[in-house]
Amino acid sequence: MKSFRSFAFILFTFSIFLFSSCYQPPQEPKAKYVFLFIGDGMGLAQVIAAEGYQSAMMGGEYVPLGFRQFPGVGLTTTYAANRFITGSAAAGTSLATGIKTNIGRISMDTSGMVPLETLAEKAKKKGMKVGIISSVSIDHATPAAFYAHRPDRNMYHEIGFDLARSDVDFFGGGGFKDPVREDVNVLELAKENGFQYINDEASFRALTPAENKVLFVHPDLTSGASMRFAIDQPEGYITLAEITEKAIAYLDNENGFFMMVEGGKIDWLCHANDAGAMVREVIDFSAAVDAAVKFYKLHPEETLIVVTADHETGGLGLGNIRMKYKSDYALLGNQSISGEDFNAVLSEWRKDNHLNEKGFKKILQVTHEYFGFGGDDAPIVIDDNESESLKKAFMAYDLSQEGDYANYSPFTYQSTLVMADRAGLGWTSQTHTPVAVPVYAIGNGFESFSGNLDNTDIPKLIWETIE
Amino acid sequence: MKSFRSFAFILFTFSIFLFSSCYQPPQEPKAKYVFLFIGDGMGLAQVIAAEGYQSAMMGGEYVPLGFRQFPGVGLTTTYAANRFITGSAAAGTSLATGIKTNIGRISMDTSGMVPLETLAEKAKKKGMKVGIISSVSIDHATPAAFYAHRPDRNMYHEIGFDLARSDVDFFGGGGFKDPVREDVNVLELAKENGFQYINDEASFRALTPAENKVLFVHPDLTSGASMRFAIDQPEGYITLAEITEKAIAYLDNENGFFMMVEGGKIDWLCHANDAGAMVREVIDFSAAVDAAVKFYKLHPEETLIVVTADHETGGLGLGNIRMKYKSDYALLGNQSISGEDFNAVLSEWRKDNHLNEKGFKKILQVTHEYFGFGGDDAPIVIDDNESESLKKAFMAYDLSQEGDYANYSPFTYQSTLVMADRAGLGWTSQTHTPVAVPVYAIGNGFESFSGNLDNTDIPKLIWETIE
Repeated sequence: MKSFRSFAFILFTFSIFLFSSCYQPPQEPKAKYVFLFIGDGMGLAQVIAAEGYQSAMMGGEYVPLGFRQFPGVGLTTTYAANRFITGSAAAGTSLATGIKTNIGRISMDTSGMVPLETLAEKAKKKGMKVGIISSVSIDHATPAAFYAHRPDRNMYHEIGFDLARSDVDFFGGGGFKDPVREDVNVLELAKENGFQYINDEASFRALTPAENKVLFVHPDLTSGASMRFAIDQPEGYITLAEITEKAIAYLDNENGFFMMVEGGKIDWLCHANDAGAMVREVIDFSAAVDAAVKFYKLHPEETLIVVTADHETGGLGLGNIRMKYKSDYALLGNQSISGEDFNAVLSEWRKDNHLNEKGFKKILQVTHEYFGFGGDDAPIVIDDNESESLKKAFMAYDLSQEGDYANYSPFTYQSTLVMADRAGLGWTSQTHTPVAVPVYAIGNGFESFSGNLDNTDIPKLIWETIE
Repeated sequence: MKSFRSFAFILFTFSIFLFSSCYQPPQEPKAKYVFLFIGDGMGLAQVIAAEGYQSAMMGGEYVPLGFRQFPGVGLTTTYAANRFITGSAAAGTSLATGIKTNIGRISMDTSGMVPLETLAEKAKKKGMKVGIISSVSIDHATPAAFYAHRPDRNMYHEIGFDLARSDVDFFGGGGFKDPVREDVNVLELAKENGFQYINDEASFRALTPAENKVLFVHPDLTSGASMRFAIDQPEGYITLAEITEKAIAYLDNENGFFMMVEGGKIDWLCHANDAGAMVREVIDFSAAVDAAVKFYKLHPEETLIVVTADHETGGLGLGNIRMKYKSDYALLGNQSISGEDFNAVLSEWRKDNHLNEKGFKKILQVTHEYFGFGGDDAPIVIDDNESESLKKAFMAYDLSQEGDYANYSPFTYQSTLVMADRAGLGWTSQTHTPVAVPVYAIGNGFESFSGNLDNTDIPKLIWETIE
């Protein structure tokens, strides 16, 4: 009898053990540290071109960019409420709020009357810290969609006003397009509202975690109060990756954080059809993602990183009629300047030179330095057709003519087209396109970002991993 | 004592119940019915253009194509062993065998000496039935990669020979490019080897499941022994979807089947930069996928459908310089003929007309019928620039000049470019491009097709769901 009792007891214990060992409570891993990276204008072709370029420069073995190795991959449609081809404001609003709106709105509904709550605001309410970083001006459409509410993206002053009154913990990157109007200086207002304003390298380097809010405006900005293009950055320039790294250290706390990092100038270079500068811009953006990945590796159970784009720009095609089945992305390495900065070079040069036959010969020598163009000994031997198209652009127009996004003169534009043509790339557009854009995800809930998504799904899915 | 015993017994029984209710053996759901759909040349932009067109024609509400609603989405790189921009043979080999090879090889290794086992052959060995379907000639690179082994895709006769000797259960779609040489007629050889040859509509319609192998060659083929472009198919034409449906019924058996269905002419239309015909070709391909989805719904636990492409063709961009932020895909609906068939119209017309000013005016009337071009009352009012470019193409070249893939005269080509331009599309290339292509999956193991893949992963992942 005793033995039976013991046997029953052992069986019972064993059964409980079996049960407890196989029982798993429903798992809902929550993300405490959340990154949303937005490559403005970065379609699938831009990503593949950048890694094709990087692989070619590294000797030819094909190596995907860091975020291209994330386990989660999706594709999102990007259309706006009132246009098939979206803009950065409407797309930014979708990515920030999960709601479709009209072109130009900054986290306001289609009517422009009702503000929409953003992911950053929700995260803040929940007790997380929030960081907003962009390589373009911090009042630009994409970053603005996370902290401002305005019916029109061009209300830069009012957006700056919203920034100054916000409780975002860390702003970093570009500056303001329209900070002072009448008696309102948004910078001063920000300081009054508790922001520590940092505008020099030493203070940036010295910044350590503290309770106060930070507004870091890069000390070396270019047109439009934005950071320099990656290709133009001098040695030691504070990069998007460094700002991201600094923000991570600053925001790291036990209640977690939400951070949006925008590579905003990929879009500008695609508007300008400047392939050589664009691939470097994507790689620079990818390095910022790598900074988050470093953090992820320390907190793999509590971190989510999502990388996506607001839309594609330029209709980039990875092949062209001249090159047929060939590609030579390494040729892009001969370009050492953005078209925009090259334009400044041209404007200087123009002061002592003329738009004539002799001038054209001299300007080709200038392109040798910046693009590798030239005669038999040059990396890119300009052929008769190219010479003619360059000459036409040189002769017919003012070299410093301004464009919509980047100030590319016709000669500059033609030079970057020659680069793209030789590398095996092409563009169909100078504006945005409605092709679906990729989403890459790693960490908590990455699986939910796999599949056919719409841009409005992104913040909803992110919130599900947090809440 | 008795009560304790009862209590222990009840507890024990309950524990066992708890254990058995929570215990789940490792799940490895196997796919019995496996479909691999390959849209030749179908990049992401082609997919979005087609659904944008379909949505516009249906009244504007955005409706994704059927396969775009699959839960699994991935992106695959496509490069060949010896070239960044792949070709259909090397890419087909990767998709059929999981191994990278050189341009031109048909399921042979890079040396061209060692045959590589294909997914179709492995499935057959396992006792499954096998179907190979293509809208282009059945000896073309993509279908050939699943049943033939040749060092060069142009060995059409030898590929036909491999087909005739294969144990594939169902071939359907296009015919042979080089069936007869000296005393070998591959069609006769196929019949000798047990294939029931079907070449008329009545026999096709009457075909019911049987044990013998079937070789269905469409009765209404065009150049290159391929089926007509979707846009050119007359009422009642046997479509790719109908062939797929017939093959499903024919191959359905208790040991399962593997089926490869290629939409082969998407690629041809992208080579020709014919956007109006291309969107219809993608929709036609999508309808073939829908036929598999119908079957999937009856066997959701045992079916896997994978849809992908071998590469992108044409560098399609969904925006252009003329249209900027606008799209008008519905305009493509005014095109009622492929460029290739329009070329035949031109050749006829040319017999009674001349390449002069009067002829140009008359030819514009012809384009009214087929493209909707014309003056004030036409759907597409041709402007001065367009008129000039069309006239230049009309005057300078022979109207029936032949191209690589589709026989598009310069005037035809220019006409299709005007269509694309007005719709808001553009092309950068007339060949393949190396941009990653999407993969869509539903059914057993669909999750494994999510993520960043290489084309060589596809057959491996498919095999894992089978074996």
